[in-house]
Amino acid sequence: MKNVKGVPQSRPLFRQVYDNILNRMERGEWRTDDKLPSIRMLAEELKVHRLTVFKAYRLLSEEGKVYVRDKSGYYVSADGVLSSELEEGSFVSSYTISNSLSDIHRIQAKYQFSQALIDPNLLPNIYLSDYVKKVFDLYPKVMGTYASIQGDDELRESLSQHFREHHRLQLSSEELLITSGAQQAINLIAQMMLRPMDTVLIERPTYSVAMDIFRRQGARLIPVLITPEGYDLVEVEALMREHKPRMFYMNPTHHNPTGYTVPAWQRKLLVELAERYHCLLVEDDPFRDMYFEEEPPLPLFAYDTEGWVIYISSFSKYIAPGLRICAVACRYPFMEQLIKAKSLADNGTPQLNQKIFLHYYTSPRLQRHLDKLRIALQVHKEIMEEELALAGWEWTAPKGGLNLWVKLPGDISADLLFRKSIEQSISFVPGEICDPLGELKSWIRLSFSFANEIDLREGMQRLTALSRTL
Amino acid sequence: MKNVKGVPQSRPLFRQVYDNILNRMERGEWRTDDKLPSIRMLAEELKVHRLTVFKAYRLLSEEGKVYVRDKSGYYVSADGVLSSELEEGSFVSSYTISNSLSDIHRIQAKYQFSQALIDPNLLPNIYLSDYVKKVFDLYPKVMGTYASIQGDDELRESLSQHFREHHRLQLSSEELLITSGAQQAINLIAQMMLRPMDTVLIERPTYSVAMDIFRRQGARLIPVLITPEGYDLVEVEALMREHKPRMFYMNPTHHNPTGYTVPAWQRKLLVELAERYHCLLVEDDPFRDMYFEEEPPLPLFAYDTEGWVIYISSFSKYIAPGLRICAVACRYPFMEQLIKAKSLADNGTPQLNQKIFLHYYTSPRLQRHLDKLRIALQVHKEIMEEELALAGWEWTAPKGGLNLWVKLPGDISADLLFRKSIEQSISFVPGEICDPLGELKSWIRLSFSFANEIDLREGMQRLTALSRTL
Repeated sequence: MKNVKGVPQSRPLFRQVYDNILNRMERGEWRTDDKLPSIRMLAEELKVHRLTVFKAYRLLSEEGKVYVRDKSGYYVSADGVLSSELEEGSFVSSYTISNSLSDIHRIQAKYQFSQALIDPNLLPNIYLSDYVKKVFDLYPKVMGTYASIQGDDELRESLSQHFREHHRLQLSSEELLITSGAQQAINLIAQMMLRPMDTVLIERPTYSVAMDIFRRQGARLIPVLITPEGYDLVEVEALMREHKPRMFYMNPTHHNPTGYTVPAWQRKLLVELAERYHCLLVEDDPFRDMYFEEEPPLPLFAYDTEGWVIYISSFSKYIAPGLRICAVACRYPFMEQLIKAKSLADNGTPQLNQKIFLHYYTSPRLQRHLDKLRIALQVHKEIMEEELALAGWEWTAPKGGLNLWVKLPGDISADLLFRKSIEQSISFVPGEICDPLGELKSWIRLSFSFANEIDLREGMQRLTALSRTL
Repeated sequence: MKNVKGVPQSRPLFRQVYDNILNRMERGEWRTDDKLPSIRMLAEELKVHRLTVFKAYRLLSEEGKVYVRDKSGYYVSADGVLSSELEEGSFVSSYTISNSLSDIHRIQAKYQFSQALIDPNLLPNIYLSDYVKKVFDLYPKVMGTYASIQGDDELRESLSQHFREHHRLQLSSEELLITSGAQQAINLIAQMMLRPMDTVLIERPTYSVAMDIFRRQGARLIPVLITPEGYDLVEVEALMREHKPRMFYMNPTHHNPTGYTVPAWQRKLLVELAERYHCLLVEDDPFRDMYFEEEPPLPLFAYDTEGWVIYISSFSKYIAPGLRICAVACRYPFMEQLIKAKSLADNGTPQLNQKIFLHYYTSPRLQRHLDKLRIALQVHKEIMEEELALAGWEWTAPKGGLNLWVKLPGDISADLLFRKSIEQSISFVPGEICDPLGELKSWIRLSFSFANEIDLREGMQRLTALSRTL
């Protein structure tokens, strides 16, 4: 209970004052050519020494954010406020919070190729409702109690066993945390690991929401190209040596958006690099079970003995995405911090959702459902590929996942195609959104998992026809 | 897509470099007397100009964090690392993440007076399970789809109507956001509003997890005493004028931990103060419906016309706490930012939980359940009060809520009593945890809502007997 004021102790006081003044200028409390409070007044307000305020004003003045007028005091420079970010009368914090993908998903479309979700008709809805009744018989008070912060014991025990058996992960239930979806897991890891100026290795292209989360934490993103052959490990090592990234966020199995899979030999070497350069590998693995021909290589986590891999497994996507159940495998001491971050975020994922998931998950129906689903998805994928082939578009056939990563022919702009498509109720994700560098302007991500077979073919025919008119 | 590096643009570059070096020292990458990278090398690594690195090193050197040795370069000073925070070999970020209350709640106790939860036997578990079946009949695909980020339309519509009718809140469904519990709401608001050095008014005593959340954001907490008569508004105005707080986090109705209720005349004036000083009032209101004699005064939100109140209503606590459903009422432009924060946090609260809650919530059973629950809680409260009276302990009888805020007699230390109680399987919350100043060492919070009547009396007799032995 010592640090009553709550300020992180590592920041020099005058820099905190500097931040404070700048923030208030950005928020519009003080505008261009406004007179700022005197050193004495601000020192009193912030309960700091006058010299501290003086140092902050001097720094602001050196940087041209404020100016001094004839000894009468400090004034806000025109450059002091980021006018573009400023909304009149708005006092909302100007930290950039954005989520480009969710903006796209808000668009309603008949031919829905933008959401990497599974057609609800392919999910075991009726079977699940039977299981729900079972859950209520077994745990009549399930809605009356909170879960533990780390997650339901029974579910973690069952999942750790599953991971041991299926993916050869050496894992105890203490090394699992249940989160409300993979996105919450990424967010908690970011809150635990990242401070401004930290570098993060990230695949190019990648899951755009992860970029939004890391950027909000003030991190710098260093792209690592992913190809059908995986990464260039010489480059990865050079980046780790040069940039000392805090972590490498990756999706190495049926990668989103490309569908590529990093080969097993690279996985082993990546874990060695992570250990050598103390770079945490954040292995996001939502599509592992959605393979078409053969099972993918083991997770990187399986090769890790030193605790430098965090494994995010969000398989509720193809059982009951509405439940939002995700498991994070992580070693101590990281796990301890992750649990604390979770405790502040929401105090634990609802018990009901965990119990429903547990009881479906441990039933033999799961495997039968997965077998059926894999076949259905492969059919979807093939319909989309047929239409792409007819149109002469380029892609690499993925071995699993829910998306095709497509190069548009000629010099068609994805951006233009997107705007025209929306008019015809067709949606997809422009590649630019998936690119840490904001390029890849002639690539798009097409999800084949959500639309039914008829809409899939019809929508693809309309989309390729539309592209020919551009 | 311009800001590729993702660094908030308002921070001067050399200060970001300064942060980066300091963070790496704190994390143990560079330890006392280690040689730091040369200016040239660090400039290359961080992709900044050498002069920028030079300025960062100069600042660090001025502050004694690093020292220069005979032109051979920069070295880490003994003062440069916060050795107390440093764990050997730990690379976890040293941002303080703590949650004192959840540490206490992890303690198992037969006589459970620490958790402000309702005895699951008093909740409508069996009725709810009927409703769950209804939900699956109505929405067979509820587990197959994600909810919208802002929350289920039907639930928001129904809640806005409820708030209009019951609490006279002028509110559209667009001004409601569904979160996974009140704690997530507080966390999202903190992420939206607070930056380091920002001040926050907070009641003394208060909900300790809120303090933990605000402190993690780097905020400074300014205590506002709450008494059975409410606040000292002259003091509140003086604090708003002097400290320009970004927000006042309050729980004005059957306050946690004291049970006090801020009177209606103060509510009106507080909203006026908020508008005048641009201080957002964050009104946390989980205990409104848990009154004993008469309904409490209207929420502050009801008096607000300018959008300076955010209202957090988490009434799932006394229907189905395991569902984790909370509604946040908030005006634009704050709402827009809040939705974005929610989108990054978990992409939306599960649809299933919202639909179950909706269908119980809109039924006539709700009112019958609440009537019964209020009587049961009053009985619980009276048992606890009887035992307190016999022991001669002091408290102010609350008009609602789940807790008694108790002054221990003589000079008994709450801390000592706590340690001895745990040995006898009795838990409660020491007042110190609820105090922004970390004092109030002879006060404790006793929750009467969780233990059954027998355990309640037995536990209280043991606790008061124990106190006489100290």
